[in-house]
Amino acid sequence: MAERVPVPRDPGNDYTTDMAAQRRDFVARRTGAELKHTGSYSIEPAVVAGNIENFIGVAQVPVGLAGPLRINGEHAMGDFYIPMATTEGTLVASYSRGMRLLSECGGVTVTVAKHAMQRAPVFHFADARQAREFGSWLGEHFAAIKEIAEATTRIGKLIDIEQYAVANLLYTRFNYTTGDAAGQNMTGKATWAACEWIKGQHPLRPHYMLSGSIDTDKKHSAINTLQTRGKRVIAEVTSRNEILERLMRVDTRTLFRARQVSTAGSFMAGSAYNGPHSANGLAAMFIATGQDAANVAESHAGITYAQLLDNGDYYWSVTLPSLIVASYGGGTGLPTQRECLEMLGCYGQGKADRLAEIVAAVVLAGDVSLGSAVLAGDWVSSHDRLGRNRP
Amino acid sequence: MAERVPVPRDPGNDYTTDMAAQRRDFVARRTGAELKHTGSYSIEPAVVAGNIENFIGVAQVPVGLAGPLRINGEHAMGDFYIPMATTEGTLVASYSRGMRLLSECGGVTVTVAKHAMQRAPVFHFADARQAREFGSWLGEHFAAIKEIAEATTRIGKLIDIEQYAVANLLYTRFNYTTGDAAGQNMTGKATWAACEWIKGQHPLRPHYMLSGSIDTDKKHSAINTLQTRGKRVIAEVTSRNEILERLMRVDTRTLFRARQVSTAGSFMAGSAYNGPHSANGLAAMFIATGQDAANVAESHAGITYAQLLDNGDYYWSVTLPSLIVASYGGGTGLPTQRECLEMLGCYGQGKADRLAEIVAAVVLAGDVSLGSAVLAGDWVSSHDRLGRNRP
Amino acid sequence: MAERVPVPRDPGNDYTTDMAAQRRDFVARRTGAELKHTGSYSIEPAVVAGNIENFIGVAQVPVGLAGPLRINGEHAMGDFYIPMATTEGTLVASYSRGMRLLSECGGVTVTVAKHAMQRAPVFHFADARQAREFGSWLGEHFAAIKEIAEATTRIGKLIDIEQYAVANLLYTRFNYTTGDAAGQNMTGKATWAACEWIKGQHPLRPHYMLSGSIDTDKKHSAINTLQTRGKRVIAEVTSRNEILERLMRVDTRTLFRARQVSTAGSFMAGSAYNGPHSANGLAAMFIATGQDAANVAESHAGITYAQLLDNGDYYWSVTLPSLIVASYGGGTGLPTQRECLEMLGCYGQGKADRLAEIVAAVVLAGDVSLGSAVLAGDWVSSHDRLGRNRP
Amino acid sequence: MAERVPVPRDPGNDYTTDMAAQRRDFVARRTGAELKHTGSYSIEPAVVAGNIENFIGVAQVPVGLAGPLRINGEHAMGDFYIPMATTEGTLVASYSRGMRLLSECGGVTVTVAKHAMQRAPVFHFADARQAREFGSWLGEHFAAIKEIAEATTRIGKLIDIEQYAVANLLYTRFNYTTGDAAGQNMTGKATWAACEWIKGQHPLRPHYMLSGSIDTDKKHSAINTLQTRGKRVIAEVTSRNEILERLMRVDTRTLFRARQVSTAGSFMAGSAYNGPHSANGLAAMFIATGQDAANVAESHAGITYAQLLDNGDYYWSVTLPSLIVASYGGGTGLPTQRECLEMLGCYGQGKADRLAEIVAAVVLAGDVSLGSAVLAGDWVSSHDRLGRNRP
Repeated sequence: MAERVPVPRDPGNDYTTDMAAQRRDFVARRTGAELKHTGSYSIEPAVVAGNIENFIGVAQVPVGLAGPLRINGEHAMGDFYIPMATTEGTLVASYSRGMRLLSECGGVTVTVAKHAMQRAPVFHFADARQAREFGSWLGEHFAAIKEIAEATTRIGKLIDIEQYAVANLLYTRFNYTTGDAAGQNMTGKATWAACEWIKGQHPLRPHYMLSGSIDTDKKHSAINTLQTRGKRVIAEVTSRNEILERLMRVDTRTLFRARQVSTAGSFMAGSAYNGPHSANGLAAMFIATGQDAANVAESHAGITYAQLLDNGDYYWSVTLPSLIVASYGGGTGLPTQRECLEMLGCYGQGKADRLAEIVAAVVLAGDVSLGSAVLAGDWVSSHDRLGRNRP
Repeated sequence: MAERVPVPRDPGNDYTTDMAAQRRDFVARRTGAELKHTGSYSIEPAVVAGNIENFIGVAQVPVGLAGPLRINGEHAMGDFYIPMATTEGTLVASYSRGMRLLSECGGVTVTVAKHAMQRAPVFHFADARQAREFGSWLGEHFAAIKEIAEATTRIGKLIDIEQYAVANLLYTRFNYTTGDAAGQNMTGKATWAACEWIKGQHPLRPHYMLSGSIDTDKKHSAINTLQTRGKRVIAEVTSRNEILERLMRVDTRTLFRARQVSTAGSFMAGSAYNGPHSANGLAAMFIATGQDAANVAESHAGITYAQLLDNGDYYWSVTLPSLIVASYGGGTGLPTQRECLEMLGCYGQGKADRLAEIVAAVVLAGDVSLGSAVLAGDWVSSHDRLGRNRP
Repeated sequence: MAERVPVPRDPGNDYTTDMAAQRRDFVARRTGAELKHTGSYSIEPAVVAGNIENFIGVAQVPVGLAGPLRINGEHAMGDFYIPMATTEGTLVASYSRGMRLLSECGGVTVTVAKHAMQRAPVFHFADARQAREFGSWLGEHFAAIKEIAEATTRIGKLIDIEQYAVANLLYTRFNYTTGDAAGQNMTGKATWAACEWIKGQHPLRPHYMLSGSIDTDKKHSAINTLQTRGKRVIAEVTSRNEILERLMRVDTRTLFRARQVSTAGSFMAGSAYNGPHSANGLAAMFIATGQDAANVAESHAGITYAQLLDNGDYYWSVTLPSLIVASYGGGTGLPTQRECLEMLGCYGQGKADRLAEIVAAVVLAGDVSLGSAVLAGDWVSSHDRLGRNRP
Repeated sequence: MAERVPVPRDPGNDYTTDMAAQRRDFVARRTGAELKHTGSYSIEPAVVAGNIENFIGVAQVPVGLAGPLRINGEHAMGDFYIPMATTEGTLVASYSRGMRLLSECGGVTVTVAKHAMQRAPVFHFADARQAREFGSWLGEHFAAIKEIAEATTRIGKLIDIEQYAVANLLYTRFNYTTGDAAGQNMTGKATWAACEWIKGQHPLRPHYMLSGSIDTDKKHSAINTLQTRGKRVIAEVTSRNEILERLMRVDTRTLFRARQVSTAGSFMAGSAYNGPHSANGLAAMFIATGQDAANVAESHAGITYAQLLDNGDYYWSVTLPSLIVASYGGGTGLPTQRECLEMLGCYGQGKADRLAEIVAAVVLAGDVSLGSAVLAGDWVSSHDRLGRNRP
């Protein structure tokens, strides 16, 4: 077995142009790959401390400008130009097409219905009866637990603790509001403090694991769809048939028929989402605005619900029950990411709900566009024209 | 209602430095956001044609170097240094820690068990009986359909057609191998040709939709987990207790106990994955190597299966049933993305399975690291040290 | 700890009136419960040998007569009177109401779309690569395996073997047609023979478990809904608005609106069925006709799919993907059960598909009735009138 | 189209021996089936009023006596003999075998962890924002709503109202304790009263449907597994290896290995239960004791969780999150059903939790027996010996 050659690091200050270059050289020597473009960046290495380790440079992900998209939110109001970072041809064009339709229909109404980021410790007992009694104790001591948890954070507020009894275990979800941060670490730290206090206070000194896996961090789950993870956001539009026919070459009746088929298929398939493609818009906006792209796993889940109105208009809504976005923390402060947030008026404090509204509206735009294209027969041809169909 | 102001475009040649700058100016004028860093890029705008529309610049996503990771695949063999593009502090360090453990254990055995990318047309009939007869007809005409479908592509091969009868509909999945491409567009085009042929040949001239939603494109689903989407890849390691204790400060028995709890929680929660966090590694590698980050939705699903052996060793495996990766097409040819693929020896033809093996091995490394950290109590503290716990 | 007192048994001939009485006396002595009615039965104890052990008498479950229901199946054609064994007031009346509607609409079209009963062995290997190679071997030896499996049964035919790779395991589903029997035991025996042969023939002598749990016997599952367990049966009706309004006091437009809500709710809830209540009709018919009532677990799953037609008519369908019914074997030959099968022309050979068609038609009748009642506001009041709302 | 011939009814008093006979004659004339045994019953037709309509006689379902089973519940304590009504050979013998093992291990510890029966109205609004505000209003008016709901019932208590926002809808679950009744009708009536009050009080006069389908009545669902429907009951045993080996011919280590495989298979398959076969015991006890057999749909869901202890003992638990049982109402008062409840000391008031404990313990017994038999190779052979393997 060959010797293990570790990546060069400078324990003093690793976030320097030089260390990044040393590591690129190391890669070049060991793999033959020249990292010329990866090593071309305008940001200061020092700014990525806390965001990455063993920094070698940047991925340059092309950003396209979609929109404008008219949004009637409570936090986002007006016409927005949307930065989307993607390498998938057609995506920006398709979303833009949907944005035009939504805007002509008067814009998207968006509502943040619920906030709940969680850490989900599980407590171990000798038997289920102990676990049940502990569950009661937990309820009775909620105020104290809340105080302990909230002492670890300026922002996070413990809202409630869900309980799920299984075997001699009590699975819980500690739900928080987390201000403008996504809050996974904040809630982890607060819940850990709470658990340590609980362990010290409860007569049984219960053993716990900080996650019993039902926070389903970075994972889609039924529990997220039901109970919310991050933000539960709803985007709605009522589209006139005339506008749909003119812009999308499809009528509302055909859309509604197709919706029945898509929903039945999604139901049978056990799909996380019964709309066309939330993940595309989410991934593109997440990368552009410094969100955690891994949260596409949770965030892409959703429920498309539509009704054909008596006048032939079409009510189309998307509910995203586990949308995780932040205007603060994580990658939001990095240079290009911050710029893209600023373009949306979403950088910094008090902006996370605004960003959530914009993201949900964008998802609806993409669904309207792709959903119509599939029916109008534009799907394959537009990819041939705009994308890289080079098989 | 304010007038809709479209994004500036040059119908002649839109992929120029100048047009990108014009659009950034447009953004600055309309939103006040200066896109200085977004406008700093080393790539030629011309190269992103086919990858994006309305190009304005790039997201600079920091790349860290993890590894080395020893892999015993059929396509990837040896020690690999892994480029990970992320803004989440601790991630690269944590994955590196897992890679060290896996390497000390002799490396990760990885196997690509199945290939199947699909487009899923649904066919409409007067009643279920017609749909059933059509299903038989489809089976009888498979050879002809295969010929038609494959005539649209140099690479894609139609393997089989799954059938799912519901109501007066026949949902299908046309499954292909797609070489080194992810293949969503390739299979779309091939299946569209097949459907048009079917519509012309079958006496009932059946109406169809090119997707009945059970391809579950950009969505997690039960059907993907069962039937595969993209590649079904399995990473395995057998870890000695001594190594785990030394590197991770946790013993195999404790890990196995905790696995029972995590799996029961994941089962109850209806989770797409019962391991710690596949999506983190996937998203970071997808962004670095020009994969479609939206495919984190499908790709993060998986099954962790472990056994404690009689000698105290720990068998730990991850099965990713719907991993979508490409070494060709999409964003793989863009400059930084290509460099990162080259670092892995994964750029171009004949490399997609190699990339799939590496990605699955990385996922296992991340799970070993986080799974151990949660038990050893390092989880919160390491985030405090390395990440941005600034609430 | 008190001594364990076993139930009296006669090792010679346990299926006698006397032994049943002795056991009832035993119960009376030990629990104080007199089993007078339980001990009142008209059947010969000898006939229940093979159906029960420690026979003490019978549960007298009231049977009501619903119908007539007009069915346009391939096996069931005409007007049927339906025996339903239940203790839930309103049920027979409600189903009858639905049957009347369906009959006035011209009857229910029913189609058995697929047959597949399975046993699902899992094979163990050293690693995933061995498992994958074994999968290929399995495909290559299908003809021989089929011969071995079918040698154990006069009726069962091995159709195919599904493969699902996970870790170092290969999960399979051996799918059979099983004639008029439900076939769980038949397929168990045949698959066991096949597995023993495989173990003897394959060079690795693979260890196996006869069930890896993905037959999901007596359990609802996503895999059953997709791949079928037992029979996949589809019942369809097109209802005229006028008839619905007259009989159900609800119009087709209102029904369709409500369908959107029910389906969205079912999708969010992760429900096994998006119709009102398949299980009621299934349980009542299963008990009456000697089916295994535990199979309500699998059989109640389904997909309701509806469309509002341009003329205002309403297409309503139910797809039951895992309906398990038999006209032979199990409890079908017991006296009252056989009588109820005979009432449907469903006793004995060549009748299972006919029974499947009737059952699916009954499910649709119940859904039409309850689905309409909920909207017309009859739901609570009819239970008050007919049922036992006595708390 | 033949004339529709309705079933004979006597509008004055339909629950008579004579009317039952007239209907059997009617069946005989129209179908040729003689209902001799179905017409042989010891119960008074008058007693089934409220339980069935169009009564024609009874299904005689054989009852076997299993046990004794030692139970350490809070309500059920001691050794129990279990009446099981089934037509599936081997079932009673297999459950008895498991009961013996559990008893020798000291008995089953059973805990009722939660009570929650629900009706789930959905409220309609103009948009999601209205729905969200209504959700707040609902919380603020809980006390008044509770009073209204509880005025309709002597027993039911409204515990809380879960809210799930989707589109312009607010789905809710009104959760009740329902004493000794299953409570579907009780909660329906109470919730209907509450909804009418809400509709009258809330300024928007919101339109509602009494079920938005997320009560998932008579259906398995993820929401039931998480949030409980009926009772959440946990049965636990710690089994000594020596006893398992002696009685079941399998050791604890082998069981635990197999558990990993079963759970991974169940997880992949999207199974409602990861244990062997809860539905068998449930169906048999439900029929014997006058429960609603359709509730097997909900009740069979569950979570098997096990641990191998350091001393080689095996902790085995079953959590049934949606077990629906009653000791009062429904079919519990019918003659044979009441006798079987009396045999368990479970007839009448204050007995439902006792019954729930017994049922859960029986489920565990069946799982231990079948789970062991599959591994010991007894599965097929015992069916050949005791059951009707007559293919």
